[in-house]
Amino acid sequence: MKLPRGFLASGVRSGIRKKRPDLALIVAEDGANAAAVFTMNRFQAAPVTLSRSAMKKSGGRVKVAVINAGCANAVTGKEGMDAARRVRTKAAQVFSCNEQEVFMASTGVIGVCLADEKVRQALPDAAIRLSSGGLEAASHAILTTDIGPKVAQATFHCDGKRGRIVGMAKGAGMIHPNMATMLAFLMTDADASPAFLRQALAEATSVSFNTISVDGDTSTNDCVLLMASGKLGAKTMSASSGDGEDFKRALRQVCRELAWMIVRDGEGATRVMELEVRGARNLREAKLAAHAVATSPLVKTALHGGDPNWGRILAAVGRSGVKFSPGRISLGAGPVMLVRDGQPTKYQEKDAAKVFSRERVPVTVDLGAGDASTTLLVSDLSQDYVSLNADYRS
Amino acid sequence: MKLPRGFLASGVRSGIRKKRPDLALIVAEDGANAAAVFTMNRFQAAPVTLSRSAMKKSGGRVKVAVINAGCANAVTGKEGMDAARRVRTKAAQVFSCNEQEVFMASTGVIGVCLADEKVRQALPDAAIRLSSGGLEAASHAILTTDIGPKVAQATFHCDGKRGRIVGMAKGAGMIHPNMATMLAFLMTDADASPAFLRQALAEATSVSFNTISVDGDTSTNDCVLLMASGKLGAKTMSASSGDGEDFKRALRQVCRELAWMIVRDGEGATRVMELEVRGARNLREAKLAAHAVATSPLVKTALHGGDPNWGRILAAVGRSGVKFSPGRISLGAGPVMLVRDGQPTKYQEKDAAKVFSRERVPVTVDLGAGDASTTLLVSDLSQDYVSLNADYRS
Repeated sequence: MKLPRGFLASGVRSGIRKKRPDLALIVAEDGANAAAVFTMNRFQAAPVTLSRSAMKKSGGRVKVAVINAGCANAVTGKEGMDAARRVRTKAAQVFSCNEQEVFMASTGVIGVCLADEKVRQALPDAAIRLSSGGLEAASHAILTTDIGPKVAQATFHCDGKRGRIVGMAKGAGMIHPNMATMLAFLMTDADASPAFLRQALAEATSVSFNTISVDGDTSTNDCVLLMASGKLGAKTMSASSGDGEDFKRALRQVCRELAWMIVRDGEGATRVMELEVRGARNLREAKLAAHAVATSPLVKTALHGGDPNWGRILAAVGRSGVKFSPGRISLGAGPVMLVRDGQPTKYQEKDAAKVFSRERVPVTVDLGAGDASTTLLVSDLSQDYVSLNADYRS
Repeated sequence: MKLPRGFLASGVRSGIRKKRPDLALIVAEDGANAAAVFTMNRFQAAPVTLSRSAMKKSGGRVKVAVINAGCANAVTGKEGMDAARRVRTKAAQVFSCNEQEVFMASTGVIGVCLADEKVRQALPDAAIRLSSGGLEAASHAILTTDIGPKVAQATFHCDGKRGRIVGMAKGAGMIHPNMATMLAFLMTDADASPAFLRQALAEATSVSFNTISVDGDTSTNDCVLLMASGKLGAKTMSASSGDGEDFKRALRQVCRELAWMIVRDGEGATRVMELEVRGARNLREAKLAAHAVATSPLVKTALHGGDPNWGRILAAVGRSGVKFSPGRISLGAGPVMLVRDGQPTKYQEKDAAKVFSRERVPVTVDLGAGDASTTLLVSDLSQDYVSLNADYRS
């Protein structure tokens, strides 16, 4: 997939990981206006701290994004911060830009300091390999336990011209990334102010990446970066225009596709529950209930087994702390109503089993307590997940 | 193990489960003063609703406890409640007591109505088999996915006489029981008022069963029942006396042993983390942080792999919502300090791996933010756990 006008990318091996590419670059030839969202975790990796501060100081301008896999450089204290700074200084030299225009991102094991010398030595090689077709190499170089790369695109119209949004992401597929799991980079040729981009990105992430990670339950390294090169040659985007709305729609589409890929490529995942909680008293309680279901190992293993064991779903809702009347709750799986007003229906077990054996399992919980609702994508919990994570470092 | 004076027990097959005993009775020959704690889940199984109300109406008197495995009789609406009532009526007939003196408990799959006819038909047989040596049969009949029965005992002194406390429990070993998992029954020959028993039980569960289930994160059926026959022939226990204190100590000991057995017999568990969170601003935050670590699949799989991947522990603490300064956090595993003041120490990997490969893995997180602390027992997450739960109903 070609990058939008104004962007180049590459992916190379720096030696952090054995035998796999681990360093990706994204360069905005003439710089880009940008917006970013970062993890809410109290522990923030050195690159997160640096990038957050740089975005503020540069007023939302990015020239180059330097992304490494294999090492999160999180909880590494001053040593890790110094290592990240050295990489940034080197990148600013190579691309003749201000240090504040270098966006840093890392993913991998926590508690290990970045081998910055390897990254610095690999930067010139990565720069030479930059091309408008470099997305594939870059999307591979940011992966850790992902099965494969995740890229998506969408188009929008502005001034009658067709613009593009291209995104790549990595995520080892935990529904609730609590390791250094989720990174996403979105590039567009639109002309837009950092303020507009911030608003559009916040809206898009709330209906995509945040429906798989749930507020606050983020890693030390999570970030999503949106860059606009302005090379489309159309007017500047504005929030109130139809063009602006079309851009936002396209951005949501790309983010949702990437989010889906992250969940579906969950570590060992074989199935995804599309969970909707509705009838909650308010959004906070809808999310609380959905979160309880999504994190229940019993629900996730039943999902893996294709078992319509809905008692586990209701038990999770029941312990979530949400207020509702057990006699008013209803639960359905696809077209099959399983529980109505707190009582099991006379459904056929084989009909329920059929829904639960699909790749996408739609489940709706209606609390019967109000009008608020939320949705969440939930991957299953398999033996392979355990194997992958019990041996991750070895 | 013999029951304390005044108690008889039995365990038989009623036919709810295929080929396994599934009905247990505990009878206090002349009745017992009693106290009970129940699940906080919004969904409460029919037997929980009945027993809670019966305890109130009888003023804390129990003649017989009827416990079945294989069916939780939870989320079964009016039908399930009627079924439980019919069992209770029958039990009151068989044991010539008031219905309010019958304590009901069920464990097993949620959403399936109790086959009360099977239970009612088996009651006379179970009554015939009652004996002071019936604990073994009873302790087997309450199991579901447990590997084996869980019984514990301790002695105390009152008036110079040696009294006994004997307990049995079942728990399929989830650290956070969110299915119909945890039941415990405690019998003593002490003479004590229901008020004293309630106080002693609340104190004992807070340092035992509640350190494995964490506040609120309970199943639809969880309950702990403490019965005192008064057959020791000593004076009535009182809260302020030394004898009362000795009784409480013995009760804590029995509860802690049973709680440990539940975690250690976790579904597929091979290892238990003894997690201590200290230095929190308050108890709520200490528990919040411990809870986040204990429910993290990444922490639990690393524990399974014997992998000292402490980054996952800190990442979980970081997303828990607890306030602390990352630069003041410390983390140790047994004698090995891994992180001090937010920075990794120069520990030897092999020393850390040695601690994590033990059956009991002591981990201490010091938030450096205050004086509050809490402890939690955390079982690991293994491939066997997934296999057990993906296929539980089949």
